[in-house]
Amino acid sequence: MRESTGGHLAVVGLGPGDARYLTAEANEALAAAEALYGYGPYLDRVPVRAGQSRHASDNREERIRAAAALRHAALGARVAVVSGGDPGVFAMAAAVCEEIETGPQSWRGLDVVIVPGITAMLAVAAQIGAPLGHDFCALSLSDNLKPWNVIQQRLDAAANAGFVIVFYNPVSRARPWQLASAFERLRRHLPGTAPVIFGRAVGRTEETIEVTSLDVADASAADMATLVIVGSRATRVIARPGRPLVYTPRAATEASA
Amino acid sequence: MRESTGGHLAVVGLGPGDARYLTAEANEALAAAEALYGYGPYLDRVPVRAGQSRHASDNREERIRAAAALRHAALGARVAVVSGGDPGVFAMAAAVCEEIETGPQSWRGLDVVIVPGITAMLAVAAQIGAPLGHDFCALSLSDNLKPWNVIQQRLDAAANAGFVIVFYNPVSRARPWQLASAFERLRRHLPGTAPVIFGRAVGRTEETIEVTSLDVADASAADMATLVIVGSRATRVIARPGRPLVYTPRAATEASA
Repeated sequence: MRESTGGHLAVVGLGPGDARYLTAEANEALAAAEALYGYGPYLDRVPVRAGQSRHASDNREERIRAAAALRHAALGARVAVVSGGDPGVFAMAAAVCEEIETGPQSWRGLDVVIVPGITAMLAVAAQIGAPLGHDFCALSLSDNLKPWNVIQQRLDAAANAGFVIVFYNPVSRARPWQLASAFERLRRHLPGTAPVIFGRAVGRTEETIEVTSLDVADASAADMATLVIVGSRATRVIARPGRPLVYTPRAATEASA
Repeated sequence: MRESTGGHLAVVGLGPGDARYLTAEANEALAAAEALYGYGPYLDRVPVRAGQSRHASDNREERIRAAAALRHAALGARVAVVSGGDPGVFAMAAAVCEEIETGPQSWRGLDVVIVPGITAMLAVAAQIGAPLGHDFCALSLSDNLKPWNVIQQRLDAAANAGFVIVFYNPVSRARPWQLASAFERLRRHLPGTAPVIFGRAVGRTEETIEVTSLDVADASAADMATLVIVGSRATRVIARPGRPLVYTPRAATEASA
């Protein structure tokens, strides 16, 4: 991002699971690092190289991990923090920025590079057609860091205005009811025929994609590895042999017809 | 996407400009194709291979290009349509789906694979920090295919509900006033201090990134190669030597405070 004589921190997007989603830039950033930080299962995807140290941490310790990586880089090292998907979408890049803003002034002088990756919604959309082919929004359903009424307000606004809606973090052990409640809320605004896509573990061997409709969408079909896309009134399903194609046309006539 | 005995069509995302953004999967799909279809400047990015035919078309001929590629694939060939960024985000995948839905029934039996890519908003966000670190929406500002009042309604909804807003297609020779009008509309809802990012030609040698604020954002700073991100009330700017960091924290307290 900028010249620096001190340490270097790369925040690297691994994409969703499979190595086929890695960009050339991500491969180079991983190879150049002296130290790798990340959630254990993400670190396990990165080929081991001699002379590289590895620092695994728990999924929920994002700020602690970001601060540890920044401290390490501030010693003058080349450090990489790995992130699933794209680091900028509900992932590690914001946690690193939070730590830079609240940490020692010297961290602002570090050379910080964010390496983008294929975020889950792009991979799920690609597997089923083009549901994100027109205006869409991406919303985290986690109410750990924001009140549920804010999420409800955003669901109402997005559905009424005709956006396709992508749910990141739809469910977890500590958040079992939120997805069902979100579907119920959307049924106030959208027809029961609006397509709903459950993409689970996309890019991994256990990948599944399910297409259903809002009237019968069952939140229990989702787990922590699932991304959910709810179509707008304009989203269409093309029946064909095997898996259907789901897409949102590029032309829109009205927002909430 | 599915087994087939007939032709094969891949819709391949090239990412934003530079080869460092290409995924391994995209490289393989391009190498395996017998025929390549696409907008000329995108085709020019793909290394020439013996035995591969190339079919360049104009930027605005998306449906014609999609239909030509489908007809070619229906003859039993391996065909690739190239797309800038990610084919599923305001790009070729929806055009291909539209042609499949309205074309000959036999096209539904083709083996269609969408290969995701780094879409422009991920590349621009990575260059400046993590502006998409929390809830956001992506909106095409082109009113070629939807009425302007639908765009206004979506701007109102997204800004009020606290989404960061990404503009694709902010301006073109035929659409000179839309971006200024969109900024004016957003000033009704957002504080003048909301950060605005202009990312131009990201991933190319002539790349520029400018950070300003909504009160002084000047639409004439954008052209056809520009992506614009307007922060929410929560988006923050970290001053530091050189280019600042812009990010949206993972925690939100209220939607429209």
